[in-house]
Amino acid sequence: MSKPGTARDPGGDAATLAAGRLTGFLRGDLGIDGPVAMHEPSFEGNEWAYVKDCLDSGWVSSAGAYVERIERMTAKACGAAHGVAVVNGTAGLHAALLAVGVGADDLVVCPALTFIATANAVSYCGAQPLFVDIEPATGAIDPAGLAALFESECAAGPNGLVHSPSGRRVAAILPVHLFGHPADMAALNALAGAHGLPVVEDAAEALGSRYRDRGCGSLGTAGVISFNGNKTVTTGGGGVIVTDDAGLAERLKHLTTTARVADRWWFDHDDVGFNYRMPNINAALGSAQLEQLPAFIRRKRDLATRYRALFGDIAGVEMFAEPAGCDSNFWLNALMFESARERDDFLGLTHDAGIETRPCWRLIPDTAAYEDAPRAGDLGVARSFVERLVNIPSGPRLLRPAAG
Amino acid sequence: MSKPGTARDPGGDAATLAAGRLTGFLRGDLGIDGPVAMHEPSFEGNEWAYVKDCLDSGWVSSAGAYVERIERMTAKACGAAHGVAVVNGTAGLHAALLAVGVGADDLVVCPALTFIATANAVSYCGAQPLFVDIEPATGAIDPAGLAALFESECAAGPNGLVHSPSGRRVAAILPVHLFGHPADMAALNALAGAHGLPVVEDAAEALGSRYRDRGCGSLGTAGVISFNGNKTVTTGGGGVIVTDDAGLAERLKHLTTTARVADRWWFDHDDVGFNYRMPNINAALGSAQLEQLPAFIRRKRDLATRYRALFGDIAGVEMFAEPAGCDSNFWLNALMFESARERDDFLGLTHDAGIETRPCWRLIPDTAAYEDAPRAGDLGVARSFVERLVNIPSGPRLLRPAAG
Repeated sequence: MSKPGTARDPGGDAATLAAGRLTGFLRGDLGIDGPVAMHEPSFEGNEWAYVKDCLDSGWVSSAGAYVERIERMTAKACGAAHGVAVVNGTAGLHAALLAVGVGADDLVVCPALTFIATANAVSYCGAQPLFVDIEPATGAIDPAGLAALFESECAAGPNGLVHSPSGRRVAAILPVHLFGHPADMAALNALAGAHGLPVVEDAAEALGSRYRDRGCGSLGTAGVISFNGNKTVTTGGGGVIVTDDAGLAERLKHLTTTARVADRWWFDHDDVGFNYRMPNINAALGSAQLEQLPAFIRRKRDLATRYRALFGDIAGVEMFAEPAGCDSNFWLNALMFESARERDDFLGLTHDAGIETRPCWRLIPDTAAYEDAPRAGDLGVARSFVERLVNIPSGPRLLRPAAG
Repeated sequence: MSKPGTARDPGGDAATLAAGRLTGFLRGDLGIDGPVAMHEPSFEGNEWAYVKDCLDSGWVSSAGAYVERIERMTAKACGAAHGVAVVNGTAGLHAALLAVGVGADDLVVCPALTFIATANAVSYCGAQPLFVDIEPATGAIDPAGLAALFESECAAGPNGLVHSPSGRRVAAILPVHLFGHPADMAALNALAGAHGLPVVEDAAEALGSRYRDRGCGSLGTAGVISFNGNKTVTTGGGGVIVTDDAGLAERLKHLTTTARVADRWWFDHDDVGFNYRMPNINAALGSAQLEQLPAFIRRKRDLATRYRALFGDIAGVEMFAEPAGCDSNFWLNALMFESARERDDFLGLTHDAGIETRPCWRLIPDTAAYEDAPRAGDLGVARSFVERLVNIPSGPRLLRPAAG
């Protein structure tokens, strides 16, 4: 193991050096003894008070006051006008895709590298993902590649853009802000506008990230935030769909609450709706968490700065940086090695040291579930990420100030 | 208003008498001053301790210890071998139907009178409900009517039973234990067995109900319990699927947890799965609630006994009784009037008195969402329930012993 912070271009292989630096930082500088998880939640505010208030009031289920509060708080955090709370981010993506008009046999443009929920939400609509490559600088959909695909393999039809190889309509673009780093939304929105396509942002990982002074989630037609247990703030499980479109928000609320028609006591339903409501007890936890969002984001950005200094002089490894013009929430910090062998060495060394690290996901089009879905080109950048990338511990507890 | 408990066949109309008795009982005998809700949860045990344990441990999300605990406790309460926790009852029904083989364009036999989730779960599979009538004694699917339907309008095909008018395969029977009263499961299971059909019990309302000494949920191929905020025990929102079939339980766990293939750190998925996990914080709340299930059931059955005495001598109104050979949990007590006019009078009088009462749902095949779904006959018994039935307050708090 190398001594941290001594040499400008220290000898030794990148994996051993980086693992040694990470271990020294977490064990030495931060003084953490036990196992270090990838992203643990941190409950430092009104979590107990709000959850207890829920239990005391008996309002643990849906339609409680905290549900409205978390909707308002999330919309505000994203800079959007409306928020609709849902049971998790997957449910939010499904509802958002339906609400912007994705239907059976349609295609939705998805990055090849993302968590499976992105693609599954498309499948739940009866549609298929059309997998495209990512760009190296953002880790998100490559707008130039997508423009070329629209140019070469798609054509305008009577009901919109048609993907010629499959004969299916392209119904939406679904960019993912990978690890919290904003996609190139200006370029993607311009492309979507030119072809009349709605954009649903999968901002599951990007709460608090900013793209040119606007919050992720508020940049497309609708955006979906996740509050899963591994996210920057958590409700246990949950999410909020944000949008500036009042009509769309109303439609989303209707669809996610069984499509019930308002009445004093009769239950009538004008559509096949969903039970995608967030329970009040989860909203209470999340409301308390959201109060701490600015502090968590500051701490996570500080951690990224310290990681950049820690690994900056090691040849053969690069910290994934926030895209130009953006302020990332650095949900998960990532290192990029030059080869899969080095990345795997790093994974083994860190796990042996009790530090959770992990590669990103397999490409979704390479999973058995999506082997038949259409894709564009060789997805070479995404494949390179799968080979070389590793996420390192990034939770808001790591730089939590000592209780005083 | 009448004086409660004085006359054997008091004068006055049934609605006025019954409303007066109910008001006198709740305001006088039970001493409740404020609004009375239909079914409020009651947190009297380890709810706060377990939820706080969750927050203290940081394990609020999925895969926590309370998730396994609620699965074991629910399976035991139902008398089933396995339990799979899910995010709500609707999700549980969807997963259970998929797991027993319901697919696109199939039909699933459903009662016409139930909450919309029963039918929606069928729709999520790409299938359609085949609506049938209920029997007066149980409020659940009428087995004789179903046998007649299978005889007259269905025929054996190469892939199973085919409904001749629609040309679709009948893929499962989905009985609902209405308001907690068990369906005639022996007759329905016999019919299912004769035609090779799986039975998924919608036991959302029937936790703790017993049919001939067996728990509801454990009587079919799989059964689904709901822990929504208005149920006998609650997790805020959540459910558990129970089954005796180990292979089915494994398949359900896989399907409800994104169909991820086990691996140290790679995410691979062999199917389009679902994010239907119950968060640990909700499981913690539910585990504490389940410890109190026997006490809640005793209290709810006591309440039903007191209601029976309260309304027993009023001509023109009947208490809905538990079916022969069954011990109902009396999730929601119901009164049956002789006409819609009297039922509506009762609704108005009780709401004016601050007491929540409500009719049952509209028939699902009469909603806009399901107007095109196939149905058998005139659904006369179910229609009569919609006209004449009203639910009255039934929660476990009503007979809660005074804190001492």
